[in-house]
Amino acid sequence: MMAKFPYKGRIVMIGYGSVGRCTMPLIERHFDMPLSRVTVVDGHDHSDDAARFIEKGVNYIVEPLHEGNYIKVLSKQLSKGDLLINLSVEVDSLALIAWCQKAGVLYIDTCIEPWANYYDNTAIPEEQRTNYFLRHRALEAAKKFPKNGPSALLTHGANPGLITHFIKQGVLDIARMRGLKFSKPNNRAEWAKLMRDAGVKVIHVAEHDLQVTDVPKMPGEFVNTWSIPGFVGEGCQPAELGWGTHEKKLPENAVEHKVGSKAAIYLRQPGCTTEVRSWTPHGGPMIAYLITHGESVTTADYFSVVEKGKVTYRPTVHYAYHPCDDAVLSVREFQEKNFTMQKDVRLLGEEIVEGIDELGALLMGDFGAYWYGSQLSIHEARRIMGPEYNATSPQIASPVLAGAMWLIENPNRGVVEPEEIDHDYILDICRPYLGPVVGCYTDWTPLKDRNVLFKETNLDLTDPWQFENFRVRR
Amino acid sequence: MMAKFPYKGRIVMIGYGSVGRCTMPLIERHFDMPLSRVTVVDGHDHSDDAARFIEKGVNYIVEPLHEGNYIKVLSKQLSKGDLLINLSVEVDSLALIAWCQKAGVLYIDTCIEPWANYYDNTAIPEEQRTNYFLRHRALEAAKKFPKNGPSALLTHGANPGLITHFIKQGVLDIARMRGLKFSKPNNRAEWAKLMRDAGVKVIHVAEHDLQVTDVPKMPGEFVNTWSIPGFVGEGCQPAELGWGTHEKKLPENAVEHKVGSKAAIYLRQPGCTTEVRSWTPHGGPMIAYLITHGESVTTADYFSVVEKGKVTYRPTVHYAYHPCDDAVLSVREFQEKNFTMQKDVRLLGEEIVEGIDELGALLMGDFGAYWYGSQLSIHEARRIMGPEYNATSPQIASPVLAGAMWLIENPNRGVVEPEEIDHDYILDICRPYLGPVVGCYTDWTPLKDRNVLFKETNLDLTDPWQFENFRVRR
Ligand SMILES: NC(=O)c1ccc[n+]([C@@H]2O[C@H](COP(=O)([O-])OP(=O)(O)OC[C@H]3O[C@@H](n4cnc5c(N)ncnc54)[C@H](O)[C@@H]3O)[C@@H](O)[C@H]2O)c1
Ligand SMILES: NC(=O)c1ccc[n+]([C@@H]2O[C@H](COP(=O)([O-])OP(=O)(O)OC[C@H]3O[C@@H](n4cnc5c(N)ncnc54)[C@H](O)[C@@H]3O)[C@@H](O)[C@H]2O)c1
Repeated sequence: MMAKFPYKGRIVMIGYGSVGRCTMPLIERHFDMPLSRVTVVDGHDHSDDAARFIEKGVNYIVEPLHEGNYIKVLSKQLSKGDLLINLSVEVDSLALIAWCQKAGVLYIDTCIEPWANYYDNTAIPEEQRTNYFLRHRALEAAKKFPKNGPSALLTHGANPGLITHFIKQGVLDIARMRGLKFSKPNNRAEWAKLMRDAGVKVIHVAEHDLQVTDVPKMPGEFVNTWSIPGFVGEGCQPAELGWGTHEKKLPENAVEHKVGSKAAIYLRQPGCTTEVRSWTPHGGPMIAYLITHGESVTTADYFSVVEKGKVTYRPTVHYAYHPCDDAVLSVREFQEKNFTMQKDVRLLGEEIVEGIDELGALLMGDFGAYWYGSQLSIHEARRIMGPEYNATSPQIASPVLAGAMWLIENPNRGVVEPEEIDHDYILDICRPYLGPVVGCYTDWTPLKDRNVLFKETNLDLTDPWQFENFRVRR
Repeated sequence: MMAKFPYKGRIVMIGYGSVGRCTMPLIERHFDMPLSRVTVVDGHDHSDDAARFIEKGVNYIVEPLHEGNYIKVLSKQLSKGDLLINLSVEVDSLALIAWCQKAGVLYIDTCIEPWANYYDNTAIPEEQRTNYFLRHRALEAAKKFPKNGPSALLTHGANPGLITHFIKQGVLDIARMRGLKFSKPNNRAEWAKLMRDAGVKVIHVAEHDLQVTDVPKMPGEFVNTWSIPGFVGEGCQPAELGWGTHEKKLPENAVEHKVGSKAAIYLRQPGCTTEVRSWTPHGGPMIAYLITHGESVTTADYFSVVEKGKVTYRPTVHYAYHPCDDAVLSVREFQEKNFTMQKDVRLLGEEIVEGIDELGALLMGDFGAYWYGSQLSIHEARRIMGPEYNATSPQIASPVLAGAMWLIENPNRGVVEPEEIDHDYILDICRPYLGPVVGCYTDWTPLKDRNVLFKETNLDLTDPWQFENFRVRR
């Protein structure tokens, strides 16, 4: 056990859902401060669930935040040097950050959230429903914040967040295996060149949640191992991916952006109906959803080599998510009902009987493919966190903890993305919560064992790493 | 309870799998004959499962049938006037029928099966892996059998089989609702004209198996409520459908046949990766697999109006199968592993905790849509059959029983398809085993609630009943 991390300020955590309830015990365990300096603000009353922390002093406020009240609520709890941890849905990250910049408050979240009724609101233009746009808007806002303002760390959960550090460790391993001469990069340009020199063409955030339960999903029920509104929201957004320089042709329903770095594109279809082939070490080959995520944009941007103002190298980057089986069935049902939400939701907890949440970065190129990530099992998660936790939440909560520590140690960096933080710092803090963290080499490609029963006419046999080869067509 | 049906002959049942084990108690219950005149031949030893019938006299032979031994095995057990019930997989139906024709033995099966290693054998030309071809081969063979030979009833399970009788009842109901002047048709031409006059454009065999279990499907396990090799075999065959005269354009990867009636087409892709929208009363809108089935061919052919040698009317007909959730997950995993079969299989029985198998004919046209079929629940199935049965097998076994009775009462009709039998005769016998048998009208169309999050560019908004509107594209 590490020495406790001293902290003199106060903490407000917005949202005590699947991530919040797992972050709280980490704060208790790792921060050297009385819990009476910690406040939870949640739109719903989860104080039963938080009872053991409330007993120890945590202040629990039930109050849905909205445009009209958030400043009032936060101003009462936080002032200069304090920390705001946003683990809610439907509370606008940008509004919170703007307030924090003024108030001198440190900030962290795990997703750039807009106010409610955004992701599936077709009155909002398609391109504005992208994570690309939400991030662009955040970066534009950041330009107007004062230099060396209070640090605000964007999107630092498992993915986005931790995954960036896995990607960095992955490319270091590949470079070493391939015998490249290099030292640990010190800045964006060096990381991007290393990625290029390692020969990486495609990066998947390859996650296979293998947790199963003995309480069957019933018709009309949406079941998942983390936020159901969060997952449904991102699943309804357009599928998005960082678009690599090796790609020969844009998908037919792809749209390029008009503003910003243009590192990513989006498809004119929801992520939860966009399927791709991917691979994880334990689960093996899988069919996964190409759900939009912040890291598809930020890492594609970060690992771009720019020469004379031109992008000469960029990997294709996207999420390839196989949620737990019951969530696969839930997504299917959601699509069957043409995106009308099920009446019941169930967050999986104690009814999980077996399985791991396998989350890592799959880096691919002509050298083969290399997966680096966490294989946390339900049993290990319960051992380290307690019987009421699943294997998904510690992967998210531990980078929140690590990010919070980084903020306190680096309080004047303004708006920061995960890519700008030293990956060793974060991995060292998270590792005890991730189960086995492994790097695995594989000869898998999306063309492996294809064309078995029937010929697929759309494959590019000359380059396995073209996006079209990954897509699942029906 | 009906009076017992007298039968003087002997019965051989090949295959004591999910269907066989449910057919046996029906034979015991409905046939007035000693069980010592019944023999089971199975390639595997399921005698434990059959113990209570073996005790009562059933003769159980463990012997895998193949081209080299089937005549020898059958000749020992059967002669003129006896009955062969084929409920196996991988035993060639045509070979059995040819032998039965010579030996004067009645014959029934639930699927035209070829010998092993056929459906997914890419050495066999694609078009020969279709049910269209297997049926064509059977009809060609039948032409060479003597007139008025022993009756051989092809494909008389739930679907193919019972479903044809549901379709007939469905079109009668629609004609009545629509105020058509008609009397119950007496022959193929009259049925076809009624179907046309009722305005039916598309018929789905719309099945939603809603049975769920509390023993979760594990990775590497294929789980289903009936034959796993049977389902995997048909799922690997090309997707096939009877092709209606209202269709404006062939799907891009469709193939038309060169021989026979040409009532059906096939797609150059496996059925288990071909998805369509359909509807059942209890389950509601669903995404289902377009798995090839005999009835897609036979009913499209049967309900064709031929005028001056030209087909002027034919409905589009295909299976739209939503297997139980665990089978959906199994199919997905099977596809993830590029059609390599899972190591373990599990037939769901006592671990089912809830649900119905909803199987019926969905007849669609500009009048709307009408579903006619069975909604057998697991609880009702257990009440009528015993705790070791699920809701799927009685729907298959009861038409086998009814077909067997029909054969005995009509012994000299040669090769017969389900369409040629009086549907009232069969429905009357089956009804006690089907739970609620209901007809439901709906305003559902495949265009209902479409274009929600994103515009789908390939829809034909001028005619909801075009095949492309049903397809699920990814
Ligand atoms: N980066 C990652 O790896 C990662 C992973 C999982 C979740 N997330 C994100 O983390 C956030 C939380 O996820 P979760 O699984 O804990 O979600 P959850 O749905 O379990 O919990 C969200 C909580 O926010 C509360 N909330 C909703 N509206 C509110 C409002 N207006 N004011 C105050 N509280 C409100 C809810 O009551 C709930 O307790 C989501 O934005 C999600 O997208 C990120
Ligand atoms: N028409 C319908 O509604 C319908 C529905 C379900 C199944 N079926 C068909 O019925 C048949 C049986 O289905 P099931 O669910 O009972 O299948 P099953 O797999 O449960 O049982 C098949 C049985 O056949 C036996 N068998 C396999 N090879 C054999 C051989 N060479 N010789 C003798 N026996 C052999 C197996 O040991 C097994 O007991 C299949 O052809 C299936 O496609 C039709």
